[in-house]
Amino acid sequence: MTLPGQLNPTPRILLGPGPSNAHPRVLRAMGTPLIGHLDPEFIGIMEDVKSMLQQVFRTQNSLTFPVSATGSAGMEAVLTNLLEPGDDALICVNGVFGNRMADIVERLGATLHRVDAPWGEMIEPTQVEEALAKCKPKVVAIVHAETSTGVLQPLEKVGQLATNAGALFLVDAVTSLGGTDVRVDDWGIDAIYSGTQKCLSAPPGLAPVSFSEHAVEKIRSRKTKVQSWYLDTTMLINYWSGEKRAYHHTAPITSVYALYEALRIVLEEGLENRFERHLRNHELLKNGLEELGFKFLVREGYRLPMLNSVVLPEGFDDAEIRKILLEKYNIEVGAGLGEFAGKVWRIGLMGYGSNENHVNCLLSALRQVL
Amino acid sequence: MTLPGQLNPTPRILLGPGPSNAHPRVLRAMGTPLIGHLDPEFIGIMEDVKSMLQQVFRTQNSLTFPVSATGSAGMEAVLTNLLEPGDDALICVNGVFGNRMADIVERLGATLHRVDAPWGEMIEPTQVEEALAKCKPKVVAIVHAETSTGVLQPLEKVGQLATNAGALFLVDAVTSLGGTDVRVDDWGIDAIYSGTQKCLSAPPGLAPVSFSEHAVEKIRSRKTKVQSWYLDTTMLINYWSGEKRAYHHTAPITSVYALYEALRIVLEEGLENRFERHLRNHELLKNGLEELGFKFLVREGYRLPMLNSVVLPEGFDDAEIRKILLEKYNIEVGAGLGEFAGKVWRIGLMGYGSNENHVNCLLSALRQVL
Repeated sequence: MTLPGQLNPTPRILLGPGPSNAHPRVLRAMGTPLIGHLDPEFIGIMEDVKSMLQQVFRTQNSLTFPVSATGSAGMEAVLTNLLEPGDDALICVNGVFGNRMADIVERLGATLHRVDAPWGEMIEPTQVEEALAKCKPKVVAIVHAETSTGVLQPLEKVGQLATNAGALFLVDAVTSLGGTDVRVDDWGIDAIYSGTQKCLSAPPGLAPVSFSEHAVEKIRSRKTKVQSWYLDTTMLINYWSGEKRAYHHTAPITSVYALYEALRIVLEEGLENRFERHLRNHELLKNGLEELGFKFLVREGYRLPMLNSVVLPEGFDDAEIRKILLEKYNIEVGAGLGEFAGKVWRIGLMGYGSNENHVNCLLSALRQVL
Repeated sequence: MTLPGQLNPTPRILLGPGPSNAHPRVLRAMGTPLIGHLDPEFIGIMEDVKSMLQQVFRTQNSLTFPVSATGSAGMEAVLTNLLEPGDDALICVNGVFGNRMADIVERLGATLHRVDAPWGEMIEPTQVEEALAKCKPKVVAIVHAETSTGVLQPLEKVGQLATNAGALFLVDAVTSLGGTDVRVDDWGIDAIYSGTQKCLSAPPGLAPVSFSEHAVEKIRSRKTKVQSWYLDTTMLINYWSGEKRAYHHTAPITSVYALYEALRIVLEEGLENRFERHLRNHELLKNGLEELGFKFLVREGYRLPMLNSVVLPEGFDDAEIRKILLEKYNIEVGAGLGEFAGKVWRIGLMGYGSNENHVNCLLSALRQVL
């Protein structure tokens, strides 16, 4: 038996749908020796992470913390805590991640109501309004940044409709957080989840979440236990808040270190500066890609600055050119999903990865290949 | 608003119930720049991790991989995949982690049957035999290394009883894997889970699991969907095996890097050498502690070499002395849980952390304090 050799992956420029390149300071932070998950110094780090997450989510919610798993577990955490079997849930679906929410709702034994829009288009508030006239859901859930299509979903009107209907408003901000504005309190969001590997520029491994007071009330008044022990906030809250810091599961220390440093970097730059940088590099990429014959899938005004979905030019060999980009230029771009497979690319410019050099590298490589 | 300062936790000697100190090579591996979760090079790393996990688990099971969350999620993954609502489950409980399994079984809507033993004692095979005469469970689950009490549970007889009764045999090896022998195939184990932050000496964040062919058959013949989308092996298998490598969730790249390096270190040392080292340092610690008036909680022959549960000497101030150890000597030891709070310590010598210097540091510090 021979052992695998030393870990030595080729350095890549990650311009896919995530993970993006982690910031070098975040990578360094991950080499920090471990301390215990009940060490007073670790409790201090947790408090700082919570406080920085509140700033990035723009919320006062005290139940704000990172779930100990990747973004999809954040989705499951929000839904499993806020839904009980038999509850009605209205899920907006215009891509992979809306579909995933619908799948989870059914696994929880809740009753699924859907609002569908074609992939690549936003959900219209009127659609939600019509759906709310026909059902009385406990939650309305929607994806802010549909990573499968590149659509940026406006949230305010849908949030008002949900609140007026007496429903909790749930938002997927996996790809948007740290790259475009996410205003939890101003937009009436009751529960939100994100991931660390997109615009926060840390490795995948944690799912920042935040729950409003209304959401916490709903959780406290549940008649049944949360179906997932691991994601049960009624227990997690005793570790992430309060005096006792009761052991629930062993926190992923190093991932928390990474998030700590990633959030410091976000706040050092400032949210507005960061959003502006994402827009600027999106524009730069857009101009270059359009010159090369790519067309944007999503209509103007609803495009994600950090995830550019572009329709490939006529006669363009999707798989072959992605292969050349990866093997010759060490650049990863994302393939299209579902009906967009072979026809669309998803080009990420996320967090630390949203910079002029990355745009220039990709455009120059494409010019050479084409 | 002032930002928290640079991450700078005090270096600690971690002699609690976990996390243990990560190996320096593992910490270095975590600084490796990210590559994509569908990158052919990452697929290669995943294959190597699977193959090394098979060696450490001593199994040929093809469904062997790390769940993307901590050890407790491994517990939930095994139970949620193998149980459907209404299924009978026989759970052996002699500490915190057996109780946790029982809790999860009830959340899944399965019917719980318990075999209980006092904390600090092993489960007797005759108890399981008697329980199996009264119910016909789909699974029998037991904890190999009860981290709350320090009991090492012999598995072979219980496994035979489970198999003879037509049940799947499920084992918690969170604390044992990599520190004492775990023979999945020889012992007839159908599903097993572990954690990375104990005797594998990587940070917490992944839960290695393995499922036998019988377990996979049970999963394939489920009548209901797995309740957790995130932990659903029927989908995870398409990412961790096979040609297509279908996207499920974004793998925690850096945690997989850490596990890769940790497993290399385990196999370089050799399993037998590693187990022998854990025993040797356990003996060294035992002799020193007994001289100081500590008594072992668990009777000889059933003690975990990597987690020493000791009853404190008369008049010993638990909290005060743990505080001095942490603040003056930077040594963390674990407190007792439940009825053992204030009366018992749990002293971990796990993986890289099981070495003579750690034993000597703790014993010397205790001699100075007492």
